[in-house]
Amino acid sequence: MSTFIRGGTVVTSETTFRADILCDDGVIKAIGNDLEAPSNAEVVDAGGQYVMPGGIDPHTHMQLPFMGTVASEDFETGTAAALAGGTTQIIDFVIPDPEEPLMDAYQKWRGWAEKSVSDYSFHVAITWWDDTVHRDMGILAEKEGVNSFKHFMAYKNAIMVSDEMMLASFARCRELGAMATVHAENGEMVYYLQQEMLAKGITGPEGHPQSRPPEVEGEAANRAIRTAQVLQTPVYIVHVSCKESLEAITRARLEGQRVFGECLAGHLLIDDSVYYNDDFEYAAAHVMSPPFRPKDHQRALWRGLQSGNLQTTATDHCCFCAPQKAAGRDNFTLIPNGTSGVEDRMAVLWHHGVNSGKLTMNEFVKVTSTNAAQIFNIHPRKGSLSVGADADIVVWDPEMTRTISAKTHHQNIDFNIFEGMEVKGSPSHTISQGKVVFKDGQLNVVKGAGRYIKRPTFNTHFGALEKRRKETAPRKVSRTAEAAE
Amino acid sequence: MSTFIRGGTVVTSETTFRADILCDDGVIKAIGNDLEAPSNAEVVDAGGQYVMPGGIDPHTHMQLPFMGTVASEDFETGTAAALAGGTTQIIDFVIPDPEEPLMDAYQKWRGWAEKSVSDYSFHVAITWWDDTVHRDMGILAEKEGVNSFKHFMAYKNAIMVSDEMMLASFARCRELGAMATVHAENGEMVYYLQQEMLAKGITGPEGHPQSRPPEVEGEAANRAIRTAQVLQTPVYIVHVSCKESLEAITRARLEGQRVFGECLAGHLLIDDSVYYNDDFEYAAAHVMSPPFRPKDHQRALWRGLQSGNLQTTATDHCCFCAPQKAAGRDNFTLIPNGTSGVEDRMAVLWHHGVNSGKLTMNEFVKVTSTNAAQIFNIHPRKGSLSVGADADIVVWDPEMTRTISAKTHHQNIDFNIFEGMEVKGSPSHTISQGKVVFKDGQLNVVKGAGRYIKRPTFNTHFGALEKRRKETAPRKVSRTAEAAE
Amino acid sequence: MSTFIRGGTVVTSETTFRADILCDDGVIKAIGNDLEAPSNAEVVDAGGQYVMPGGIDPHTHMQLPFMGTVASEDFETGTAAALAGGTTQIIDFVIPDPEEPLMDAYQKWRGWAEKSVSDYSFHVAITWWDDTVHRDMGILAEKEGVNSFKHFMAYKNAIMVSDEMMLASFARCRELGAMATVHAENGEMVYYLQQEMLAKGITGPEGHPQSRPPEVEGEAANRAIRTAQVLQTPVYIVHVSCKESLEAITRARLEGQRVFGECLAGHLLIDDSVYYNDDFEYAAAHVMSPPFRPKDHQRALWRGLQSGNLQTTATDHCCFCAPQKAAGRDNFTLIPNGTSGVEDRMAVLWHHGVNSGKLTMNEFVKVTSTNAAQIFNIHPRKGSLSVGADADIVVWDPEMTRTISAKTHHQNIDFNIFEGMEVKGSPSHTISQGKVVFKDGQLNVVKGAGRYIKRPTFNTHFGALEKRRKETAPRKVSRTAEAAE
Amino acid sequence: MSTFIRGGTVVTSETTFRADILCDDGVIKAIGNDLEAPSNAEVVDAGGQYVMPGGIDPHTHMQLPFMGTVASEDFETGTAAALAGGTTQIIDFVIPDPEEPLMDAYQKWRGWAEKSVSDYSFHVAITWWDDTVHRDMGILAEKEGVNSFKHFMAYKNAIMVSDEMMLASFARCRELGAMATVHAENGEMVYYLQQEMLAKGITGPEGHPQSRPPEVEGEAANRAIRTAQVLQTPVYIVHVSCKESLEAITRARLEGQRVFGECLAGHLLIDDSVYYNDDFEYAAAHVMSPPFRPKDHQRALWRGLQSGNLQTTATDHCCFCAPQKAAGRDNFTLIPNGTSGVEDRMAVLWHHGVNSGKLTMNEFVKVTSTNAAQIFNIHPRKGSLSVGADADIVVWDPEMTRTISAKTHHQNIDFNIFEGMEVKGSPSHTISQGKVVFKDGQLNVVKGAGRYIKRPTFNTHFGALEKRRKETAPRKVSRTAEAAE
Ligand SMILES: [Zn+2]
Ligand SMILES: [Zn+2]
Ligand SMILES: [Zn+2]
Ligand SMILES: [Zn+2]
Ligand SMILES: [Zn+2]
Ligand SMILES: [Zn+2]
Ligand SMILES: [Zn+2]
Ligand SMILES: [Zn+2]
Repeated sequence: MSTFIRGGTVVTSETTFRADILCDDGVIKAIGNDLEAPSNAEVVDAGGQYVMPGGIDPHTHMQLPFMGTVASEDFETGTAAALAGGTTQIIDFVIPDPEEPLMDAYQKWRGWAEKSVSDYSFHVAITWWDDTVHRDMGILAEKEGVNSFKHFMAYKNAIMVSDEMMLASFARCRELGAMATVHAENGEMVYYLQQEMLAKGITGPEGHPQSRPPEVEGEAANRAIRTAQVLQTPVYIVHVSCKESLEAITRARLEGQRVFGECLAGHLLIDDSVYYNDDFEYAAAHVMSPPFRPKDHQRALWRGLQSGNLQTTATDHCCFCAPQKAAGRDNFTLIPNGTSGVEDRMAVLWHHGVNSGKLTMNEFVKVTSTNAAQIFNIHPRKGSLSVGADADIVVWDPEMTRTISAKTHHQNIDFNIFEGMEVKGSPSHTISQGKVVFKDGQLNVVKGAGRYIKRPTFNTHFGALEKRRKETAPRKVSRTAEAAE
Repeated sequence: MSTFIRGGTVVTSETTFRADILCDDGVIKAIGNDLEAPSNAEVVDAGGQYVMPGGIDPHTHMQLPFMGTVASEDFETGTAAALAGGTTQIIDFVIPDPEEPLMDAYQKWRGWAEKSVSDYSFHVAITWWDDTVHRDMGILAEKEGVNSFKHFMAYKNAIMVSDEMMLASFARCRELGAMATVHAENGEMVYYLQQEMLAKGITGPEGHPQSRPPEVEGEAANRAIRTAQVLQTPVYIVHVSCKESLEAITRARLEGQRVFGECLAGHLLIDDSVYYNDDFEYAAAHVMSPPFRPKDHQRALWRGLQSGNLQTTATDHCCFCAPQKAAGRDNFTLIPNGTSGVEDRMAVLWHHGVNSGKLTMNEFVKVTSTNAAQIFNIHPRKGSLSVGADADIVVWDPEMTRTISAKTHHQNIDFNIFEGMEVKGSPSHTISQGKVVFKDGQLNVVKGAGRYIKRPTFNTHFGALEKRRKETAPRKVSRTAEAAE
Repeated sequence: MSTFIRGGTVVTSETTFRADILCDDGVIKAIGNDLEAPSNAEVVDAGGQYVMPGGIDPHTHMQLPFMGTVASEDFETGTAAALAGGTTQIIDFVIPDPEEPLMDAYQKWRGWAEKSVSDYSFHVAITWWDDTVHRDMGILAEKEGVNSFKHFMAYKNAIMVSDEMMLASFARCRELGAMATVHAENGEMVYYLQQEMLAKGITGPEGHPQSRPPEVEGEAANRAIRTAQVLQTPVYIVHVSCKESLEAITRARLEGQRVFGECLAGHLLIDDSVYYNDDFEYAAAHVMSPPFRPKDHQRALWRGLQSGNLQTTATDHCCFCAPQKAAGRDNFTLIPNGTSGVEDRMAVLWHHGVNSGKLTMNEFVKVTSTNAAQIFNIHPRKGSLSVGADADIVVWDPEMTRTISAKTHHQNIDFNIFEGMEVKGSPSHTISQGKVVFKDGQLNVVKGAGRYIKRPTFNTHFGALEKRRKETAPRKVSRTAEAAE
Repeated sequence: MSTFIRGGTVVTSETTFRADILCDDGVIKAIGNDLEAPSNAEVVDAGGQYVMPGGIDPHTHMQLPFMGTVASEDFETGTAAALAGGTTQIIDFVIPDPEEPLMDAYQKWRGWAEKSVSDYSFHVAITWWDDTVHRDMGILAEKEGVNSFKHFMAYKNAIMVSDEMMLASFARCRELGAMATVHAENGEMVYYLQQEMLAKGITGPEGHPQSRPPEVEGEAANRAIRTAQVLQTPVYIVHVSCKESLEAITRARLEGQRVFGECLAGHLLIDDSVYYNDDFEYAAAHVMSPPFRPKDHQRALWRGLQSGNLQTTATDHCCFCAPQKAAGRDNFTLIPNGTSGVEDRMAVLWHHGVNSGKLTMNEFVKVTSTNAAQIFNIHPRKGSLSVGADADIVVWDPEMTRTISAKTHHQNIDFNIFEGMEVKGSPSHTISQGKVVFKDGQLNVVKGAGRYIKRPTFNTHFGALEKRRKETAPRKVSRTAEAAE
């Protein structure tokens, strides 16, 4: 059965126009004015609405085992919540334990994800280093469709990479045409400050932001960027939360370096006052890394999106409920890090971005979908509305007004950082693989319908950098005559 | 008769893929793999080549009456030369004399342009101000498809605008949904320095760059940008030639302002040493404003393109031959300002941009075509390869190597600023309105075949700024109680 | 009779040490440990206190005729209030009306100032231009000790300079070795916005900041700086109130330009919320130009001082009482612009600067005294504690706590913008020309005791710039052979 | 016997005036006009000359054991060469081997330095870490007058510090009131690139700059600055050679951080083309770290000095002769790093700085002497001309022209990086501890006359930062009620 979207205004990353869209076999078959709907088609009336590429959330952690517990949201509930919010693909993370073979971890995550209801892909984290890691990166990139590897510069004594490892792994990424990505916080500084906070008796959640100040993130972002610069390979900074790391990215981009930055819906809208709330549960529910920041950082992040120095928006969706958060009641360093958002991102971005005039609708599509698809090299299959593309589509009602709440959201967590926020503009329909999976506020999903999407290596930036490297190759001076002496 | 482009690699501003393209009735009818060529179609074999949107040069001056003479290139020869270089549309300038009614000037230029062989549009310059100018801007925007108005901040005692006029005209642009554009040089400073040079006996072409140093451009660019900021309307800076004005643009963009910058092929590649050549003709042939700059500015401009702070490339194509340039033999201020380039821009950008890895192919399409189409609101009709778009296409042979020379170029001028430059990559075919107008180095054009392209007002940025203005509207404090006292 | 300061800690712009100081004949006679006090000396016990150069306020307007009224503070009361606050010299402004001969205005102000109780100097404003202005600038600089000329870029239809005048006057300043100074606000933009506010019915004091937003100041600062750059002459921006103009200054300084910036005590501490107060009198009392700014600008200004990009602090002391301010009750553009501060500057800077660790004590001396003395070329006579220097000294009690209030201040105005601010650290004694003129909270001043201080031209920066100009002098290309043809 | 300097123009960091100077007992006894020369005084005729504080070179390595050899210049010859160039004090480095007790290394260097002919001090490097290092830092700071500790971020597998060590050591510096200083190059990146160069067969000196590109320095400088920011303690970056690290410093200073930068005479004037010379000896003679840089970096460094973002100039004087350099003939990583300069710095700075108008004479004094004295807390004893200060003075003949050459210099090395440079302006006399030790081109020094100068801890910046730390101390949220549940 096919799906026919009638009478909407198509909004892509580049342009806006009136058109009908016909989907069949999971892909877009036709886009045009006055198309004929097949008789068997489910017809979506998109009159007065915007038809856009489904969102891509390039940063989620479904059912992540972390800090002694497991994230409450699994791949089934998580991808369903995503669809309810207009997001039709996630890119989650395989995070091997140190010493754990990459392929083992990868297979484990692949297994967990089989119940997904929407399409998904995986970044793989490099948390340790030896020849097998080097080898397995090759297998993953060349055979398994993994074109990005993640590096944690924080979490000392756990998954933190050293500068030496980072150089080795980035070099391997370059060779494979895979994007190096980093969680940028200086883990040594964080550790130092955590000890200082605890020594001063600051054991509550307010110790969390105070042990991870913006300069700690700015330092690490700059270091990762310089590492990529030395190697002339692209780099992507996840969850940019502050001016300091944005400035590092901006500086590099202004100098012509191919650096990309992601920011989270939460960091765009929530400030660090939440950690000073005297209700532990409320404060702890906001504990994630990097933490929420003072207000001027939010303004900076919006400007980063507007100016194109930040390209993508994500959520770092990683759910822990109050009983899980309680593990750190007496020591903030034990509070599991993470909050939700995969369902809310699109609406929150639309309301605060498009409705305020900070972003045009086309820019909204770029930062919620197209840019991620391009950077992670699944465009135009994903992130575009074009004939032949996957029919992952959101029909957006700009007049729908609703209030975000944990009571009504589809996310499997007892808290919502956007609780009580009234947003204007939300999905009326979400279409995944050509099927209407969400309409009238109701999900209609099939466990396991989601597919693992392989991502090819060598996105467009690698070719350009290959030419740059040739142009700037090391020079050797011939001193043969002299050597003969 | 239709045109069928077979077997090429389609390169758009967003993506790259293998496809055939069918053109008919002047538009693109189909894009896809293994399309069938109609029997009557002219078939272009694009094997091993790139198929891209035809170039748009948003800044040319064909047959401009200027400084006591008239530019040697007319609309027929100029648009033909453009097609030979892969550029399928120009946007030229109507420049009324002070006191000349705008509509008169506009009609005059429309008449001159009728012989064009490719499509074209017009910016209109605001060189004076009264109520009729205000009124005529409205007619041009609403009836004549003029969605951009140009302001010269230089040329004192001629067409220079005052700050007061600039405010009035930008405000009118905002109201009409038209882009304000500026030639940014501080005319008072230029005049002061010109007098100083002449007083010091510096009468040769070397006086030209020395009386128009970069700070003079940077100042004006910043002033225009601040004017647009006060009014919250978009602004476009033509021919950004130096770090100083690029920095003004970049600063504003980083602060979220909607500012756009254009740079010229010449400014990207030629430095100011040309003016110190002891051959007057050689030096004078390079006289244009802003002048060519020291080498570090070229590097800065490339970085501006790479980082997206400059969006478009143009040429300011305005041809004067040696006898015309000779008018300033004893006084550089009398040398007619202008050089050629409309034919060379695409090849020069490809060679120095794409071949060096500074730009990806998609970025090349953006800066030579798509961005201009979007900013001047003729996208996706122009600047895209999509079904329904005008069939203005260039088939690009990345292996073709040739040497640029005035002896072989199609431009009607006796000099080429890129003389002797070997470039790899050039058009094998140019298609205009669906017809092959250039192939195997031969033009096949029809005088008058070019159409005047109306450009709608209110591009996407205006809507966003309208929302911003509402969000930041002036506040009034109610002090009624007090007033009652 | 001499004055002997015993047992204090001497704090200069460069160093801090324990020493006694002997003053006689109006100058410092000795500085050293364990000096002997002459028998006839007035002995000041400075134990536990800091002994610093008296403050210099380089920006005051005593008894200024402005906007249809005259500032309430005259030279006698104003210099007395200054001494009570530890400031021992002011530099006030001669502001000729357009067309008024400079020498007439100068003599008028010299007459008004004769009753001053502390030393003073004058900047002279250039508010119009012809050959007599050019000539009189020379007389003032060479015979009358005026080494700085002020240019108002705002106040359209009154004293605003055009770009053309500014170039001419800056060039004259360069020739005379006099500092060009500017009030940086774009007068055209201000005028445009004022009309817009009034047209929208915004007639109250809240219209004042809204018609003079930061970009208006940033634009003008940048333009003045570029003008000075073109001429290679130093420039000094008065009352920098916002990030935008600070950035223009910082940019220029980072590029090696000799640019100086002054900020006001008020702009460092007060934000623009005052204008939205629903009490007209309160709001109007804060009306000055540039206006107070949102909080993030205050942080920027402090950083400007800390980083040395702003060199001086001043007050723009210009007092108008409530009945005078009432002139603009129905039209904010008619509210006389100005607030007080000459008495409060030192204490406010100490409390918020030194006590918070933003400034060291030596930096405090620099920004309240030494830097102004150097820039306006009266150092080391003023602004230093050295043998032979004028004995203008403040003895500072770091433990004294008091609350600033209009009820207790010595300024002749019914309002104090720092009302209710508790400050720790204030003068216990002020010594002017070697005499104790303020102690135990009591003034002991003599009308007319203040002297007009002539300021020599050609401060240290002029010599350096003269060398730069020679190094970068315009080049002439010899094309004689060609000319012979 | 006393020394009397007659008729000179005294130039200090703050002012310029005519005065005689009387020196006795090693200190300045009087400064004034028309002083009387004691009958037994050696009289220096300073007519037409400038009398300035002797230079301080805060970065030298006399007789350093390094890379398998020992620097050829010892403390006697090195301090003598310094005096010949107008530099009256050096601050050298104690560099313990890893595991070597700090006190042992310190005593060893103290012994080596006893033969010095001018005054000297020591920084001590932290090259490893344990409790004894922590303890010995305290002894050195509190008892031995060491107020600065150096950290090498390069030289992997040798003296490189980890981030963890750097945090610990900076924290200890903060506690002791000692300045943390760093050699900023990312040692991991350098190591990686060295291996890459060697693997590509690039074994000559050109491999040196190519394995230490500017981004490697910029990264490390930024990391050190962020470390200091986290701890709120001052930091000093030695030998800033490139835009990248200057930008890190500038950024931090603009944000109010107390960061200081030093640059070397060589980095200001010599570019990296020297390494591509096909004469190995010539190229190798320039091998030092960081390496010389492309020309645009030199311009940036001058601007850093002009804008006050770099405060000091030094030389990193570390001499190795051709036979020593030959150790790396087949492998550039084995070439001992270092060049000379202690004798040349003052003349080179004067000629290229003051004569070109880049620096005023007062700024010259700041960057060659006063700033170093203030930062390392020996001002006003050193770096000033004031009564009571050490009589370390240079009498500067601005008209003396000479050509720098290894054939005529006093430095104990067979090469001079400034060979052939003609400079105008040089010392006619150098006075050390009140004695004329250099005149008419002749040294008159006494082995061992130099004294070890203890430097007190807690310079002026520490007090300010202590206040900042209190203002921004970590906050604890009280959640007692909740805990009671
Ligand atoms: Zn993370
Ligand atoms: Zn994450
Ligand atoms: Zn132009
Ligand atoms: Zn033009
Ligand atoms: Zn003013
Ligand atoms: Zn004023
Ligand atoms: Zn070093
Ligand atoms: Zn060193």
